[in-house]
Amino acid sequence: MKQINVGIIGFGTVGAGTYEVLTTNREIITNRVGGEVVVRRIADLDIETDRGVPDKPDPAILTTNAMDLILDPEIDVVVELMGGLEKAREFILKAMENGKHVVTANKALLAEFGWEIYRAAERAGVTLAFEASVGGGIPIIGALKTGLSGNRIQACMGILNGTSNYILTKMAQENLSFEAAVEAAVTLGFAEDPPTLDVDGTDAAHKLAIMISIAFGSAVDFGHVFREGIVAITPDDIRYAREFGYHIKLLAIAKDLGDQLEARVHPVMIPKDHILANVHEAFNAIFLEGDFVGPTLYYGLGAGRRPTGSAVVSDIISLARDVVMEKRGMVPPLGHVQPPGKAVSIQPMDALVTSYYFRVSALDTTGVLSTISGILAQNGISISSVIQKGRDRKGSVPIVMLTHEARESQAQQAIRLIDELDVVTDKTVVIRVEGNDL
Amino acid sequence: MKQINVGIIGFGTVGAGTYEVLTTNREIITNRVGGEVVVRRIADLDIETDRGVPDKPDPAILTTNAMDLILDPEIDVVVELMGGLEKAREFILKAMENGKHVVTANKALLAEFGWEIYRAAERAGVTLAFEASVGGGIPIIGALKTGLSGNRIQACMGILNGTSNYILTKMAQENLSFEAAVEAAVTLGFAEDPPTLDVDGTDAAHKLAIMISIAFGSAVDFGHVFREGIVAITPDDIRYAREFGYHIKLLAIAKDLGDQLEARVHPVMIPKDHILANVHEAFNAIFLEGDFVGPTLYYGLGAGRRPTGSAVVSDIISLARDVVMEKRGMVPPLGHVQPPGKAVSIQPMDALVTSYYFRVSALDTTGVLSTISGILAQNGISISSVIQKGRDRKGSVPIVMLTHEARESQAQQAIRLIDELDVVTDKTVVIRVEGNDL
Repeated sequence: MKQINVGIIGFGTVGAGTYEVLTTNREIITNRVGGEVVVRRIADLDIETDRGVPDKPDPAILTTNAMDLILDPEIDVVVELMGGLEKAREFILKAMENGKHVVTANKALLAEFGWEIYRAAERAGVTLAFEASVGGGIPIIGALKTGLSGNRIQACMGILNGTSNYILTKMAQENLSFEAAVEAAVTLGFAEDPPTLDVDGTDAAHKLAIMISIAFGSAVDFGHVFREGIVAITPDDIRYAREFGYHIKLLAIAKDLGDQLEARVHPVMIPKDHILANVHEAFNAIFLEGDFVGPTLYYGLGAGRRPTGSAVVSDIISLARDVVMEKRGMVPPLGHVQPPGKAVSIQPMDALVTSYYFRVSALDTTGVLSTISGILAQNGISISSVIQKGRDRKGSVPIVMLTHEARESQAQQAIRLIDELDVVTDKTVVIRVEGNDL
Repeated sequence: MKQINVGIIGFGTVGAGTYEVLTTNREIITNRVGGEVVVRRIADLDIETDRGVPDKPDPAILTTNAMDLILDPEIDVVVELMGGLEKAREFILKAMENGKHVVTANKALLAEFGWEIYRAAERAGVTLAFEASVGGGIPIIGALKTGLSGNRIQACMGILNGTSNYILTKMAQENLSFEAAVEAAVTLGFAEDPPTLDVDGTDAAHKLAIMISIAFGSAVDFGHVFREGIVAITPDDIRYAREFGYHIKLLAIAKDLGDQLEARVHPVMIPKDHILANVHEAFNAIFLEGDFVGPTLYYGLGAGRRPTGSAVVSDIISLARDVVMEKRGMVPPLGHVQPPGKAVSIQPMDALVTSYYFRVSALDTTGVLSTISGILAQNGISISSVIQKGRDRKGSVPIVMLTHEARESQAQQAIRLIDELDVVTDKTVVIRVEGNDL
């Protein structure tokens, strides 16, 4: 029976998970591949720490030098699970030059240097696979590249960061402040300390950029993806949202506008019976819409040793199947043989048209609502509902409202003017509304 | 640029949808394949009817003889969309013998004669693809064969029949009888007239048998899959279910028990905040659980010209990619190189352990509840809650109850005894409860 040799760079959480899947399910995998997948080498700067895998690797296969496996002529597939940008990029490119197929879970690297790597794979005639880079264990890359390949993709929208979703869920269920929910998430191991890239939208934006590359075959300038995190969300906003019939979620959204794309990550209010509104805890869910398939949804655990290991191994199995058949470079990295590669333009955020939730903090004086609604009207924004709450301890009251659709530039202008009013005591909270049309 | 020639057998709903995807998205598909996919021949007994596709096929490519395309040496991929068993089986086997890759959406054929066809594909060294056979546009076959390939699959569970789900949704939302909901579904084109195989569970069981083949690599004797339809469900049951906090859905369930499988299709009560309980109208949703990935869910339109066309075309694209690369027989039909093929034994329904909903119709006499609960207790069944309703017009009252977990054989025995009581006026309705542990 043919043997497929794998080298793993990075033996942290995901590396250990990958090793565990490969050893635990060895028999099933051999049958699915038609060959034996063997971990021939594992590289990590720290090869002393016990990773708690049930079937410990032979110390002889451990190395602190990634080049040991990149240059090993016996290795067919290099699996990069070290994370980070520069070193990971260097190792992946070197591995490809040496004719290795590459599997990576490195979303930051693909979002920022993806096109260089995609092109290098094609030049080298090797396959690059990255199922684990988006949505953890959810086979979303496969759905985009293969399952919906007959469709013009019209929208990708999803809860792509499990840490943020866990924090928002805790805030909603236990009426916690953002800070208290972060603390709970860190204590329970659901978040790094501090979870900056998770809660500021960067991690979700990385994943969105990768999905855009496949869905639209377009290079995206990652810096142009709008990002706004969940730091400013308060339990009050979550409560008011619920009164209006919405939940608050951190959503990554890409829509095909014809000659431009919408590409944005920010908190949204989403109708409470929308399927994305009911994705709780550390779960991820991605909604894909195609011109023929219509709306589809994919749901599962978006992070963690075991689900991410599952995704990495599904890629290893696909590549191993290629190796067994002595086929190389089967499906191009993005599923397009000639990826347009041209940078597609992202619609400036100012041009977005959507509905809004505003929470204005104002002194409870006569005429304040009339002043505020006057400013909104002058900027072409009409209100669909308002809740005016009783006085709070600081002497100011929250005025919360939902608007009809308006242009982002006008909404921002109106909020600037409102925040300059003497009666307004705090910065107005703005949350966009999504999913009313789904 | 390389040309991949496709022949389509059957130009009905799905055939026309497939043709429409291929022509409408020609440019995208060419780029995804790296070659041009050309429909070279379409066979149908009726080539006169206008199928309403936007880009009408040249009459010269239409034929009433499927052998015209099976024997055409220029055709690379044969797409069987005629349905039915004998003729379809014959055409598929002939096409394979002639070296054609085959795409089919024929779930009845694969459920009943799948293993013969899977083996014929391997013998002929061609690829057999059948994404459209389960879940319409949802790429569930890809998820099982590739996306979760590193996992031991522990459970597949889903709403696999859109017609039944549409009927149950209408019954719940509009308080319609089963018959009235069927009539509405037929009128709106959501159901055949009569929709026998949809509402009796056969269609869902076909799809379940196909998923079992991939998930467990096991041949299933389709006749051993337990099937119970939704015909006996009444609006009353839906209302009582709701009072207990459940929705009623027709679910197809397969679970790995180690040396046996559970494989059953029947109505279930499912907790109302379970994600499967919130799949409405003609949507399908499939829940897959693997040992590493954990729970995952896939949701979309399970039938119809456009979604099913999308799935068929995703298979055509995968095969066309193979043809372009001059690779054949890439991934075996079930994703296992050596499918065990041995028939796995399905657990007899009597051995099932689950919770139950019973609706007993009884005369409102003193002691009736005590008699009934006595019979249940003697059969080892304990009640978790009871609702006893007021007298209805026939002088009998419904006694509805939920039980703790019990064995199916004991539940059936108890119900037999209860139905023999003089005070019991009608056959007791039994619905199994699922999803409390998810």
